[in-house]
Amino acid sequence: MATTFEHALSTEGTKLERSVLRELLRFTVDPEIISLAGGLPASERLPLEGLRTCLNAVLTRDGSRALQYSPQHVPLRARIAELMESRGVACTPEQVFITNGNQQGLTILSRLFLDPGAPAVIEEVTFTGIQQVTLGRGAEVRTVPTDLVTGVDVDAVEEAFRREPRPRLLVLVTDFHNPLGVSIAAESRERLARLAAEHRVPLVEDDPYGPLRFAGDPRPPIKAYDDEGMVFYLGSFSKMLAPGLRLGWMVAPEELMPRITTLRESIDLESSTLVQRAVAEFLGQGRLEGHLAALRETHGARCATMLRSLEEHLTGGAQWSRPEGGVFVWVELRPGLDATELFRSAIAKKVAYVPGGFFSVHGATRNAMRLNFSNVTPEAIREGVARVAEVVREG
Amino acid sequence: MATTFEHALSTEGTKLERSVLRELLRFTVDPEIISLAGGLPASERLPLEGLRTCLNAVLTRDGSRALQYSPQHVPLRARIAELMESRGVACTPEQVFITNGNQQGLTILSRLFLDPGAPAVIEEVTFTGIQQVTLGRGAEVRTVPTDLVTGVDVDAVEEAFRREPRPRLLVLVTDFHNPLGVSIAAESRERLARLAAEHRVPLVEDDPYGPLRFAGDPRPPIKAYDDEGMVFYLGSFSKMLAPGLRLGWMVAPEELMPRITTLRESIDLESSTLVQRAVAEFLGQGRLEGHLAALRETHGARCATMLRSLEEHLTGGAQWSRPEGGVFVWVELRPGLDATELFRSAIAKKVAYVPGGFFSVHGATRNAMRLNFSNVTPEAIREGVARVAEVVREG
Repeated sequence: MATTFEHALSTEGTKLERSVLRELLRFTVDPEIISLAGGLPASERLPLEGLRTCLNAVLTRDGSRALQYSPQHVPLRARIAELMESRGVACTPEQVFITNGNQQGLTILSRLFLDPGAPAVIEEVTFTGIQQVTLGRGAEVRTVPTDLVTGVDVDAVEEAFRREPRPRLLVLVTDFHNPLGVSIAAESRERLARLAAEHRVPLVEDDPYGPLRFAGDPRPPIKAYDDEGMVFYLGSFSKMLAPGLRLGWMVAPEELMPRITTLRESIDLESSTLVQRAVAEFLGQGRLEGHLAALRETHGARCATMLRSLEEHLTGGAQWSRPEGGVFVWVELRPGLDATELFRSAIAKKVAYVPGGFFSVHGATRNAMRLNFSNVTPEAIREGVARVAEVVREG
Repeated sequence: MATTFEHALSTEGTKLERSVLRELLRFTVDPEIISLAGGLPASERLPLEGLRTCLNAVLTRDGSRALQYSPQHVPLRARIAELMESRGVACTPEQVFITNGNQQGLTILSRLFLDPGAPAVIEEVTFTGIQQVTLGRGAEVRTVPTDLVTGVDVDAVEEAFRREPRPRLLVLVTDFHNPLGVSIAAESRERLARLAAEHRVPLVEDDPYGPLRFAGDPRPPIKAYDDEGMVFYLGSFSKMLAPGLRLGWMVAPEELMPRITTLRESIDLESSTLVQRAVAEFLGQGRLEGHLAALRETHGARCATMLRSLEEHLTGGAQWSRPEGGVFVWVELRPGLDATELFRSAIAKKVAYVPGGFFSVHGATRNAMRLNFSNVTPEAIREGVARVAEVVREG
């Protein structure tokens, strides 16, 4: 047994950061700990009654069809196409592919475009799931920096595109970046779409947070500037509606749909038709806008509370992003501090965050931390940030 | 664009059979066509009201917790461990890993154990999803024959195990094989578990149909004979409860759980907590046994109808498996006939099946077809088999 499992346990196919992180976050089940380490939308705002109504409506109307195998649910694809339209993206239902959320979209696209050794471009600091589908697939990863105010460095992207061999994929988080909280500058978006088209590099736009803007002017997704079908948009109901639905979508050229479908089927066949129908019903009943308005209001107030608390306790000792949406604030401590090392003192003081080092491909952001404001009460935010500040001062 | 997508479209990472098949089955949406091509449990027996009750109970009791992200649902793991116990498999809740169904379990295990070029053993005639996670992963596939009465040829398995380099994986469908309808002989099961242990080859037991036995004596899964943790059991609620739930599980050694969890997270994070909780509630309310009894009765009656119709119309012209459960009968026509070529005449006569060639790694079973009985009314079965027989006689 030893030899077989040793092989499996040592395979480098996937980064292990998340399981290390999981170990770390195991501490946070202590109910006395204020967790700023999550990434969930406000629990109080989940559309519990709306989804219950829609689930029951679907079971009554569709009967056993809501429980069998079924292909992609056409009415949901149509509703999503409308949603994209409302954000400035022209797309047909046939260009929408339903997934179990953006991680699955990333998996499918990395299998479509990347082989081991193929070059891919990602941000130096980015969501661990993006690292997993590129580094984890054995890609030769080129990283580009991200500014806390203007987002990804587009000059660096262009430079990475010009290097031979040409990259096979670029993956960006457009709005309210995980973990940085920043959005790509409006003027950079068109240029990114043009660069992808010029250099024939598929650009994956990972956008789970875009509809969660609570301040500032809306910016169209990069996909809105894509005339040549080189931008692959990933949208998710996880933050907009509920993570427990496990539902998202991809916008991709129709010519790739048979291949995408085959890849998807080889992974897990399809998404729950019951959940697809319930979400189509939710959108069809016009429930989304009211729900998003309430969610944005709550998230916006909590973000403001967090920014005020950071100013109160950490001015001079750290700097941080000022998100206009999403669920995260990124805090950079003075150089030399290590948020992973400080984590034990934080736990001792009953507060938790995610150490910044986990998000950096080359480990450059060990002096940073990601804080969540969306699913924490204002009192807990104030107290939590005060405790974090104490840890930082003593660090 | 052309070059980039050409690469993606030509990538050999996944077999394309399914999309060819999909094209073929497109014909079957014609409501006048009797489709024996499906693989669904009886629609009339889906536990619509039971699941509705459980979904509502969970939303009332658990509130927003039923809609957030959540780890594997512990009560469901416990219920599944009891279910395994009832089938003769001793396992703890910690050895149960929730998946989105057996295709996802296959994907995870193939990523855990197989690299491109690594040897794997599968049946020469087997479920296309098993071909996708082995051939599609670039494995060096060794195939073993399967007998229509006694199941997989265990001598051939042993021979494949003895060849160097040692295989990294064996994948078998234990009960009511897809597409063959046969179950592995009782006496072969212990021997297979022993061979896997002796040769240190992980044995993946794909068993979505095991609980759907409507005749004959129950046989314990191979996993029941596994003393050394070398058998990985895959179970599914797709046929037992409802395909639209997209829920299944894996039984694996606890030491591999962190690695399995990381792999799963890299693919699509987790399964819907709402669905996990609803199924745990369904099992907890003791609803499973009554549901399975009704399902078995319906499937058994439909299978009997199909076997009688085959005897009436095809005696002398074909031979077929005699399943004691599951959802499929396998029909072998006289050598020289090609069921793929006959498909167009079948469609002209308003009947559909799945041509056998799709299930054979080396294309050896083009003179066979897979017929579904579970989700077809008795009248449609009689008429459908009569039409198939006509096609075969004229072929």
